[in-house]
Amino acid sequence: MRELLVIGIGAGDPDQVTVQAIKAMNRAEVFFVIGKGAEKQDLVDLRTGILDEHMRGDYRIVDIVDPPRDRTPSDYEGVVDDWHDRRAAIFEEQFGAVEGVGAILVWGDPSLYDSTLRIVERVLARGIETFEYSVIPGVTSVQSLAAQHRIVLNRIGEPVHITTGRRLREGLPDGVRDAVVMLDADCSFAQLSGDWQIWWGAYLGTPDEVLISGDLPDVSQEIVRVRAELRERKGWIMDTYLVRSR
Amino acid sequence: MRELLVIGIGAGDPDQVTVQAIKAMNRAEVFFVIGKGAEKQDLVDLRTGILDEHMRGDYRIVDIVDPPRDRTPSDYEGVVDDWHDRRAAIFEEQFGAVEGVGAILVWGDPSLYDSTLRIVERVLARGIETFEYSVIPGVTSVQSLAAQHRIVLNRIGEPVHITTGRRLREGLPDGVRDAVVMLDADCSFAQLSGDWQIWWGAYLGTPDEVLISGDLPDVSQEIVRVRAELRERKGWIMDTYLVRSR
Ligand SMILES: C[S@@+](CC[C@H](N)C(=O)[O-])C[C@H]1O[C@@H](n2cnc3c(N)ncnc32)[C@H](O)[C@@H]1O
Ligand SMILES: C[S@@+](CC[C@H](N)C(=O)[O-])C[C@H]1O[C@@H](n2cnc3c(N)ncnc32)[C@H](O)[C@@H]1O
Repeated sequence: MRELLVIGIGAGDPDQVTVQAIKAMNRAEVFFVIGKGAEKQDLVDLRTGILDEHMRGDYRIVDIVDPPRDRTPSDYEGVVDDWHDRRAAIFEEQFGAVEGVGAILVWGDPSLYDSTLRIVERVLARGIETFEYSVIPGVTSVQSLAAQHRIVLNRIGEPVHITTGRRLREGLPDGVRDAVVMLDADCSFAQLSGDWQIWWGAYLGTPDEVLISGDLPDVSQEIVRVRAELRERKGWIMDTYLVRSR
Repeated sequence: MRELLVIGIGAGDPDQVTVQAIKAMNRAEVFFVIGKGAEKQDLVDLRTGILDEHMRGDYRIVDIVDPPRDRTPSDYEGVVDDWHDRRAAIFEEQFGAVEGVGAILVWGDPSLYDSTLRIVERVLARGIETFEYSVIPGVTSVQSLAAQHRIVLNRIGEPVHITTGRRLREGLPDGVRDAVVMLDADCSFAQLSGDWQIWWGAYLGTPDEVLISGDLPDVSQEIVRVRAELRERKGWIMDTYLVRSR
């Protein structure tokens, strides 16, 4: 493989793709799709829709199947490291089978809670496959959330903290009063005490988008209920939110 | 004015604009340009370049000139509030002079350190002009920075903090080890002590883009020097960076 393009494609709406991303996609002959087996069919369809919308020529899709993983190892770190190595070996093999330009499409932007760049660095570190690679930025689900609620994430001159559900449950750092939460399977907002507001969004950028906002005590239970219903109905959910303390 | 579109246009590269933003731009008859008088000609040219690249039909540009501001008031809050009110009145007047769809283009994304949405809300709160409005998200300079350095902002499962130069100088919250810094006119990274790395970028997305990265003790002085030279040469600078403690 001569070159690899890691392309951010926005939160789901084919129109949220940049011109730069469309140009990059059209330079690629092969799109590597990671862990497709485990991926929800809706997401596969969304991505296919984005390719159909923007690709002018032919392309191939190559599935990269993750190696099996021991989920309850005794030697945790060693096992995880070994798994990452076997994973990198699989990528290396697939990259090596391509002649020209390959691409990996990433939901949102590759810089936020995404493992693609780490895998690519790991493949390169093995020193067997060498290739140019570049990253094309995309609109993150955080920006989509803010746009749909028409909010600014930060207060004037103040910071904004982007974190995970687990970290929110463990407690925000002292002084953090504005936090965007991703990767939260547990409605961790419901555990916040004090005077918080929330702006929540699910399936952002897709036809199934749902938005709820308000004072946390007023809407917390509603979000928990709606989230469970949506998850049940579709079989999966992707949601993110901003919490702000007064 | 029937409708207002607040459109994120990315960090400067006309190709960093989304399809959604291009469609929105083409629905607008008028683009409001805020504080153009005070804006650097380079930025005016960049924005004109983006419009030229993507607009298919005619459009008008309407300058909104900020009211004069007392920079050293005795009654600080009262004066600032009064200034915001006079500002909103000027926007209100300009919005009222438009019939169809107006738009405001925002560098990066409107959700990050940008005052446009606050002004729009203020105009609407006055209750005189009423209009629909929506926000079209864009690629932020933060995503551009990460893409050009090919980095992930967060460490696995860890948060990332987005803050200002002033806040960095005042000290990061306890436990924050990954911070993106914006609005820093003072090279505040130079005051960090300890084992930090930095990924710095100026004029991201433009032909003048400059990137420097490394261990902070090794590159801190170089960034200070290069930044001063660039600023001197062009008369202005826009830069942002990620700092990460080991
Ligand atoms: C593995 S991270 C990837 C984030 C992605 N790189 C980005 O820039 O948005 C997945 C998390 O992102 C958020 N997310 C991604 N896409 C989303 C969407 N369409 N709607 C709501 N949340 C989304 C959710 O919090 C989800 O748990
Ligand atoms: C008023 S804020 C606007 C941020 C913008 N809304 C965004 O999403 O990137 C201006 C700050 O953003 C950063 N910035 C904006 N554009 C930039 C660029 N092209 N290159 C580097 N930094 C930029 C700088 O830190 C600058 O001080």
